[in-house]
Amino acid sequence: MPKREFLLSPGPVNVPRRVSLAGAAEMVHHRSEEFGELMQAIDVKLKKIFKTKNFIVYLASTGTGGMEATVANLLNRSNEAIVVEGGKFGQRWRELCQAFQIKHHVIPLDWGRAVKPEQIEQALKAHPRAKFVFTQLFETSTGTAYDIENIAKVTKRHEAILVVDAISSLGAVPLETDAWGIDVVITCSQKSLMLPPGLAFVSLSERAWKVVEQSDLPKYYWDFKAYKKNFPYTPYTSAVSLLRELNESLDIIDEEGGVGARLCKFEGYAQATRAAIEAMNLKLFSERPGAVCTTVQVPTGISDKAIMENLRQEFQIKIEGGQDHLKGKILRIGHIGDVMAKDVLGTVAALEITLHKLGHKFELGAGSRAAIESFVGATVMTK
Amino acid sequence: MPKREFLLSPGPVNVPRRVSLAGAAEMVHHRSEEFGELMQAIDVKLKKIFKTKNFIVYLASTGTGGMEATVANLLNRSNEAIVVEGGKFGQRWRELCQAFQIKHHVIPLDWGRAVKPEQIEQALKAHPRAKFVFTQLFETSTGTAYDIENIAKVTKRHEAILVVDAISSLGAVPLETDAWGIDVVITCSQKSLMLPPGLAFVSLSERAWKVVEQSDLPKYYWDFKAYKKNFPYTPYTSAVSLLRELNESLDIIDEEGGVGARLCKFEGYAQATRAAIEAMNLKLFSERPGAVCTTVQVPTGISDKAIMENLRQEFQIKIEGGQDHLKGKILRIGHIGDVMAKDVLGTVAALEITLHKLGHKFELGAGSRAAIESFVGATVMTK
Repeated sequence: MPKREFLLSPGPVNVPRRVSLAGAAEMVHHRSEEFGELMQAIDVKLKKIFKTKNFIVYLASTGTGGMEATVANLLNRSNEAIVVEGGKFGQRWRELCQAFQIKHHVIPLDWGRAVKPEQIEQALKAHPRAKFVFTQLFETSTGTAYDIENIAKVTKRHEAILVVDAISSLGAVPLETDAWGIDVVITCSQKSLMLPPGLAFVSLSERAWKVVEQSDLPKYYWDFKAYKKNFPYTPYTSAVSLLRELNESLDIIDEEGGVGARLCKFEGYAQATRAAIEAMNLKLFSERPGAVCTTVQVPTGISDKAIMENLRQEFQIKIEGGQDHLKGKILRIGHIGDVMAKDVLGTVAALEITLHKLGHKFELGAGSRAAIESFVGATVMTK
Repeated sequence: MPKREFLLSPGPVNVPRRVSLAGAAEMVHHRSEEFGELMQAIDVKLKKIFKTKNFIVYLASTGTGGMEATVANLLNRSNEAIVVEGGKFGQRWRELCQAFQIKHHVIPLDWGRAVKPEQIEQALKAHPRAKFVFTQLFETSTGTAYDIENIAKVTKRHEAILVVDAISSLGAVPLETDAWGIDVVITCSQKSLMLPPGLAFVSLSERAWKVVEQSDLPKYYWDFKAYKKNFPYTPYTSAVSLLRELNESLDIIDEEGGVGARLCKFEGYAQATRAAIEAMNLKLFSERPGAVCTTVQVPTGISDKAIMENLRQEFQIKIEGGQDHLKGKILRIGHIGDVMAKDVLGTVAALEITLHKLGHKFELGAGSRAAIESFVGATVMTK
């Protein structure tokens, strides 16, 4: 059985015990009346996190399944798409377009940069046949939040369908699905929703459903129309235990003041961490950080592995390194899931001890002081 | 929260508490060393249930996802397939072929009939371009087991790839993947493996992998090659809590004497139930029953709903009715999952009380006596 670790990863995250135990209840049938009632209760609460009245599709899959399903449901073989590629998850949109042989135009970004709404506008002008924009809300591989509010203004102007991968970030980075007019939003269970992996959720606007009607790509398990038709049941078996955990988690989020309080909480954690990082003589990596995770440049002369291993062995804290060409160059410190302010403060202090031990030059205690000052100065709720 | 019911459904099934609590342990990262070790331990044990040395793909999806993935990975647009359609799940193979625009030839069966190996042979002869046979091991909608051992001899002779949906039946109906030479076997978590829904497993022979290499249907999340390349990790996030439950469940199966003992146990339950059904002046529905569930014709003058509702309200026992055109005509009594002999005996007795109350004519006590005699006569382990 794996050892206990406190997860400060951008997902998977720590799952509250109350949530886990809700999943351990006796099994019920996914065609029972009780299960239908459970799904309806979940749906009301999940729509508050999505900030939408749109229909939400409940998939038994992880987030990438939600991305594949979105491509398979929205597109026609003859469609063209714009893809924002600023990291590993933008790359995934590109690879999905390749897999489905969809003609696509990539907006390449240096990893750590945020796409500018003007770049989307230029791409849509340069490729007038492209009526789909695939992007992230938060590029988890680089710790970068994109300006979806203003990107949505551009796509609306060009009558393009905006598809936002908010897999790591819904409930951690602000997103107003209906107010901003986002056509498709995807998220999953093991991030801000504090569940184990195994569920993906996709919301679709009326405009997106019209496009779904015309799609000719092959799908069956992924077919969104079947999910709409069968609600509050799923067309195939539901992942019952995970959905019960979702219900419990959504109750906790409500009890703690709703999604607004939650966004403030994680943003407070991220701000405190960023302040501490700079006070420890380290450099932040992303030009537009967000509250899912903070990305930090690995200081010269110290290996990322040594830092992660020390945190893991001495403090049972799991943070993550970089992916692909950022391997060895950055660290990613997560803020989401079942995390309290004391965990953030304790992790900053543990990082100080670790860096000191590994010979990094900085004023011992400066990181913790900066984090404390950040919490003191913050008006946001950070319980 | 849904009320407690004892599930005697062909899936979902009752999950042992030990299994549920294994899933409620603290989350671990799906890229950690510990998780890799867990997957390797699981794989050794699951191969014993599959009776195979073949590679097994672990999908975060339910069984239908495993079926879609199989079609998307095996076939070329130009391929033709033979589909056995003897119920709702054979129909699913047909619908999948339609969704992926694969030319297919259906062997239609009256629901409740088992396909004969000669019918497969005739179809392969009539359609020499069809080199794939899609079938079930157990057609759950009719309670019918197919003779896969002899069907495999036919497909081998014709060098066709045999794909067996054993979603409800692996670990409940005998299947020798390697000894019989089955190319592809699919199963899922919420049946004989006694887990909540959310995992699908697909084993592929060397011959099947060669076909996978040539497939040109679009896929990404489903791409089996990525699963093979990344083992013991999955290419995308793993459904960690369900996999931990799987590990626990496989340990229980081992402790109880392995898959052989398990097959005997469920077959003993099914035999006792069939004996009881006939002794209660009811008729069995399937011509070739198996141990997943027993299908029973609803007696004239009594509604299936009245029987199911009485069992549910008075005894908290959940059995299932028929699907599609069998709705109202049959009952399905499950035998798999966390079920003990006393549950089978108690359910037979509860069914006697229910039928008596609803005015069905039979000798009260005859069903229970027949079930008891069946257990007494059985040499199989039925603990």
